[in-house]
Amino acid sequence: MNAQVLTKQDKIIANPNCSTIQMVLVLNPLHKKYTIKRVVVSTYQSVTGTGVKAVTQLTNERNNVEGEMAYKYKIDKNAIPHIDNFLENGYTKEEMKMVHETKKIIGDDSIKVTATCVRIPVMGGHSESVNIEFENDFDINEVKKILKEAPGIVVQDDIDNFIYPMPLTAHDKDETFVGRIRRDETQPNTLNCWIVSDNLRKGAATNAVQIAEYLIEKNLL
Amino acid sequence: MNAQVLTKQDKIIANPNCSTIQMVLVLNPLHKKYTIKRVVVSTYQSVTGTGVKAVTQLTNERNNVEGEMAYKYKIDKNAIPHIDNFLENGYTKEEMKMVHETKKIIGDDSIKVTATCVRIPVMGGHSESVNIEFENDFDINEVKKILKEAPGIVVQDDIDNFIYPMPLTAHDKDETFVGRIRRDETQPNTLNCWIVSDNLRKGAATNAVQIAEYLIEKNLL
Repeated sequence: MNAQVLTKQDKIIANPNCSTIQMVLVLNPLHKKYTIKRVVVSTYQSVTGTGVKAVTQLTNERNNVEGEMAYKYKIDKNAIPHIDNFLENGYTKEEMKMVHETKKIIGDDSIKVTATCVRIPVMGGHSESVNIEFENDFDINEVKKILKEAPGIVVQDDIDNFIYPMPLTAHDKDETFVGRIRRDETQPNTLNCWIVSDNLRKGAATNAVQIAEYLIEKNLL
Repeated sequence: MNAQVLTKQDKIIANPNCSTIQMVLVLNPLHKKYTIKRVVVSTYQSVTGTGVKAVTQLTNERNNVEGEMAYKYKIDKNAIPHIDNFLENGYTKEEMKMVHETKKIIGDDSIKVTATCVRIPVMGGHSESVNIEFENDFDINEVKKILKEAPGIVVQDDIDNFIYPMPLTAHDKDETFVGRIRRDETQPNTLNCWIVSDNLRKGAATNAVQIAEYLIEKNLL
């Protein structure tokens, strides 16, 4: 039920997939309190997740310049429901990473995740629409309180003042932003939320630095 | 259990919301066969759904020109989880339209829908990631066959050849495109799919014309 604990015996630490890590940051404290049964996630992923070739492709397309393509199709003004290779079961590798890595990082094989991963014309910031079913019921204000107190998370959830996470405002930030936190009224113990993080910061570089800091702090090197 | 039938007594026919109609086109034939219990949908909506002011906003932003804003925030290189006004329950009007209009058009109050509606920098074509739980189990090839035979739907589901719906390829088309059709392995009788349609065609003008054609054909005017 608890996230895995590192020891001196752990010689290789995998830096997890960027779309998984920002979701897990939000799921983990909620799992501890309410026990997650099932997650349905749809992603809105930045081209920066692919690398410089994709950034160049989008930039070229915006400037009507011909050039090398990182994707099979144009990404400008488009949404491509295809990230990484397709697997036998009809899912992409990216989608199955969200399924497997979530269980692995939280350290609970019983958490079920189904994912649809989509590339959109955004530079720097993955967004995720996440539907979470818990074993136990929750109080929506308590959910917000738990997330506010969780490390690395900023709750942006004030719809009266149009405050919700967006890739433009998450860009160049180390935190993971969560908002649109509301009860899913179609079944018991279920929550909808919207999670955004700069995939080049928390999703990659920042997280690697944080793992190193943790190892030094805990004297695990 | 059946979609509502028009009679001469129906004086006002509402042209439904653009994000709802493309989803219902796919849901309706599947509901007839397997009975839908619950739908979790996340949308990726084009700025053309807002109107000319939003198209101008996006165009201005792309050209670094100052101008009037249709949205509270920049839409270029962004994803805004906020379409239409917020309601008391924390959902937007757009999200609740998907909940209520789906039941109304299919004519079955027992269908449960939870929605997250998001604006992305696309011009002409709403996309939807849809998770559908049925009462009864399905055969995935039969699902594809039912959708292939349903009017107004084109199945684009050949991942080996990178065939799936996208707003760029749905643009200026009257049909609704569905692909990424696959079993959700986290619970029984559940399906994931990806639905795209040009919101200015099927979502509005084309649908109004089709309603008029139907009325003339059935001698209902």
